[in-house]
Amino acid sequence: MHKLLPLASLLALAAAPAWAQTPEKTDAAALAKIKDEGMNRSKVMETAFYLTDVCGPRLAGSEGLARANAWTQKKLAEYGLANAAVEPWGDFGRGWDIDKSYVAMTKPYYHAMIGVPKAWTPSTPGGALRKQVVVVRATTEADLAKYKGQLRDKIVLLPVANPPQPNFEPDAKRLSAEDLQKLADAPATAPTTAANRPVEPATAERMAALKTARELRAKMADMLIAEGAAAVLSPGRGTDGTVFTTNGAPYAADAKPVLPELEMSSEDQLRLIRLAEAGIPVEVEMETKTRFQTQDLKGYNVVAEIPGTDRKLKSEVVMLGGHLDSWHSATGATDNAAGCAVMMEAVRILKASGLKPRRTIRIALWGEEEEGLHGSRNYVKNHFADPATMQLKPDHEKLAGYFNLDNGAGKIRGIYAQGNEAVKPIFTTWLAPFADMGATTVTLRNTGSTDHVAFDAVGLPGFQFIQDGLDYFARTHHSNQDTYDRLVADDLKQASVVVASFVYNTAMRDQKLPRKPMPAPTPPRAQ
Amino acid sequence: MHKLLPLASLLALAAAPAWAQTPEKTDAAALAKIKDEGMNRSKVMETAFYLTDVCGPRLAGSEGLARANAWTQKKLAEYGLANAAVEPWGDFGRGWDIDKSYVAMTKPYYHAMIGVPKAWTPSTPGGALRKQVVVVRATTEADLAKYKGQLRDKIVLLPVANPPQPNFEPDAKRLSAEDLQKLADAPATAPTTAANRPVEPATAERMAALKTARELRAKMADMLIAEGAAAVLSPGRGTDGTVFTTNGAPYAADAKPVLPELEMSSEDQLRLIRLAEAGIPVEVEMETKTRFQTQDLKGYNVVAEIPGTDRKLKSEVVMLGGHLDSWHSATGATDNAAGCAVMMEAVRILKASGLKPRRTIRIALWGEEEEGLHGSRNYVKNHFADPATMQLKPDHEKLAGYFNLDNGAGKIRGIYAQGNEAVKPIFTTWLAPFADMGATTVTLRNTGSTDHVAFDAVGLPGFQFIQDGLDYFARTHHSNQDTYDRLVADDLKQASVVVASFVYNTAMRDQKLPRKPMPAPTPPRAQ
Repeated sequence: MHKLLPLASLLALAAAPAWAQTPEKTDAAALAKIKDEGMNRSKVMETAFYLTDVCGPRLAGSEGLARANAWTQKKLAEYGLANAAVEPWGDFGRGWDIDKSYVAMTKPYYHAMIGVPKAWTPSTPGGALRKQVVVVRATTEADLAKYKGQLRDKIVLLPVANPPQPNFEPDAKRLSAEDLQKLADAPATAPTTAANRPVEPATAERMAALKTARELRAKMADMLIAEGAAAVLSPGRGTDGTVFTTNGAPYAADAKPVLPELEMSSEDQLRLIRLAEAGIPVEVEMETKTRFQTQDLKGYNVVAEIPGTDRKLKSEVVMLGGHLDSWHSATGATDNAAGCAVMMEAVRILKASGLKPRRTIRIALWGEEEEGLHGSRNYVKNHFADPATMQLKPDHEKLAGYFNLDNGAGKIRGIYAQGNEAVKPIFTTWLAPFADMGATTVTLRNTGSTDHVAFDAVGLPGFQFIQDGLDYFARTHHSNQDTYDRLVADDLKQASVVVASFVYNTAMRDQKLPRKPMPAPTPPRAQ
Repeated sequence: MHKLLPLASLLALAAAPAWAQTPEKTDAAALAKIKDEGMNRSKVMETAFYLTDVCGPRLAGSEGLARANAWTQKKLAEYGLANAAVEPWGDFGRGWDIDKSYVAMTKPYYHAMIGVPKAWTPSTPGGALRKQVVVVRATTEADLAKYKGQLRDKIVLLPVANPPQPNFEPDAKRLSAEDLQKLADAPATAPTTAANRPVEPATAERMAALKTARELRAKMADMLIAEGAAAVLSPGRGTDGTVFTTNGAPYAADAKPVLPELEMSSEDQLRLIRLAEAGIPVEVEMETKTRFQTQDLKGYNVVAEIPGTDRKLKSEVVMLGGHLDSWHSATGATDNAAGCAVMMEAVRILKASGLKPRRTIRIALWGEEEEGLHGSRNYVKNHFADPATMQLKPDHEKLAGYFNLDNGAGKIRGIYAQGNEAVKPIFTTWLAPFADMGATTVTLRNTGSTDHVAFDAVGLPGFQFIQDGLDYFARTHHSNQDTYDRLVADDLKQASVVVASFVYNTAMRDQKLPRKPMPAPTPPRAQ
């Protein structure tokens, strides 16, 4: 269906004069209703409590995510949304849950440690292990070979690349006026595709080093199994009891076996390593019980709609979303229960305000984002277009816009226009009423790493808001500390009304949001 | 021996003209040797590693403290010090060690939690408990009474007073030029004694509130036992995986029984509480194995000496010390292995430099500081004077000075003259050669809460250095994160040479350090 390509480009060009000539209209009365409902009768923290504390960790394929899928579908239906559904997007892989996790140093003295089972790793066989440790320091295969014959029945300790240092920077930050001005002044950057992505020499070197490390780690995994090692303790990034768990073992149904592995607090890992390397016998006790689920290998998104009321426009759709899945060591509060709670609150506000959107509004709570935006990418592929071929489905032309929230729990300070110059004045107008709430900035800059990318990749106008970072990178992003406690009610209320307003404006304007020129097909993304 | 009082006062007055008229002499060659040994052949981090990682947690009466006592005695003897001894100071109470600690939420889903057994609490009976929880919110006895009949076989959750907030302040800080200037400009404050301690109304109110809370907590403890509660989870101060454990159950050999109790990470505690108070059944599994030691109830200090070489002055003593005991949830690196490592390094430097001190230098590594400066207070009482009577022992007049280091692991920025105006110009002269290393400031201000207070309380010149705080109050002071990782080698090297120099100068000068007027007897401090 290559012929759709020029058509879509023409549509995009045709839209440009419209925004350039017609001042963007906004509806002050509607906005007042949205602000009143969102600021005075907010449910966003209650929603966040259910998503985090009640549903629990929501790893792709886990029971927690299944609970969250069921709860959000039910809740969205309760809000009065139509077509609330848990929609499969295709095959993901195995489910995985933790039933027990315990790790302690038992020699030279007892010390309970902080460690998190790496996702999709197996149980310790036969209950608890109590084993001696061995530190494996290898940057080459030759290094690795030296450990042959020394690993049987041992718990392998992997070194800590960056030991803790005193931290003279605050954990939590908000964007300063200067930060925002820089964003506002940033020129449009070309959309990065596999074809045009510039690779600087330093980056290339780092990527090559990463690739080498990954390959070595794969060889090490095989060797540890072959040599009969008992388990692995690897260092998690983070300090002071915070452990980041940023990856997992393979989740494919046919993945090769791996050893039980915990990602450890860096202080605990370093203590074990220092003792072992000083020649002091160290014994570790660990018990991991994990459970794989292989009955249902599918991945899911939760969707629901506020049907449009304009006969001509109701077949068009404004989407908003965040991802419901999380990593497993906490309850994914900032990544991304916050985004889901805000999006659910935005549609609740719109329903509760009695506003009548012209276009249909569809919320999507994505699954399997953390493993590569699987939920949104496959939703886009199933409904709109496959970026590999850029063959467009009929609904591709029906999408008026997509709004995403997934940069932590901080309030909205603006929006990334994602290089879409035509949309900048529209968003600038829409943000104006939120200046007193701190949201002011439209940047042409691209941002990535979350679900609007799936839309952007097929030429659909998908956007992520600019948010205050708070302690997202220092403490919560993929860590064991990403809990409800990190959420700030005032920030999430503000975000909810900004999103509700943007979604409502998109549903009401005469044209869909302007689009960028259609991208060329891109090869499938490597896992 | 009241007659000694006026004599001591006379001596103090007699000393004043000496420092006022004679410029303080320093020995540049000796200082160069000290700096060379301390900065270029430092052992301070190796010592700190043994005190923390190898000996482990060093709670009063624990096996870890016994290991540290034995290791430091041996090490000081290896350094060539004389009279290295583990010296009992009197009766302390029961020893206590942890053999296992595990706590997890098992309903509504599994979540391994971060919790630390409160010191001197018993094991969970019969292995692991798996019980429902009940939140007890009580600020009065009437509140407490409402829970009668509801606590049997339950794990009691106590509320979190200060939920986590985003932290916009850095964890680690160094003293600024402005901070130091304020200290330099501070006037002498009157020594605080029970008699003259001013109590502001706000403080009085807070103290009354604390007393009420303590009394209520004692009544609650009795009630929980009487009602058959299974265990207690109380909130530890701290966030992000850091848990402060700042107190323990009674350690007296005849203490009343208490329930097993864990101090929990505030995020974990809050999750349990939010779920329980939302009516969602919560089950907790916990297993604590602790062990009491009642064979030896004594407390100990470790002492060792570099004998003086001046026939007239060698019977006089310069002391230096830190406390070897710690809280139990980490390895007490900043509180106070750092201080002990620096003090051990200072005497090592003095021995290795081949310097010949005129007076005897005596290092003391105190025990049982955390429970009320017991080691140093009793040492002072046994050797110098009882503050309750101010009857002085003969050695009281032999002490030239005492130097303490116990404000974390940060480098030395100066010294608290503890209201001793006569000593200020002496210390100012002694600090001058360390200006390029950041140590510049003599403040007349008092500081308390550590072992020099025991000396000050009987009119002996005891001093604590001013140190950069680093992350002492934010992260390490009495927390589960007070580990070797928090130590900064450059800071501890600097502190070692400053201390070595001050001790050497005190050992060499013609007079002992000037003393303040002798204090009046003070009643024994309440436990």
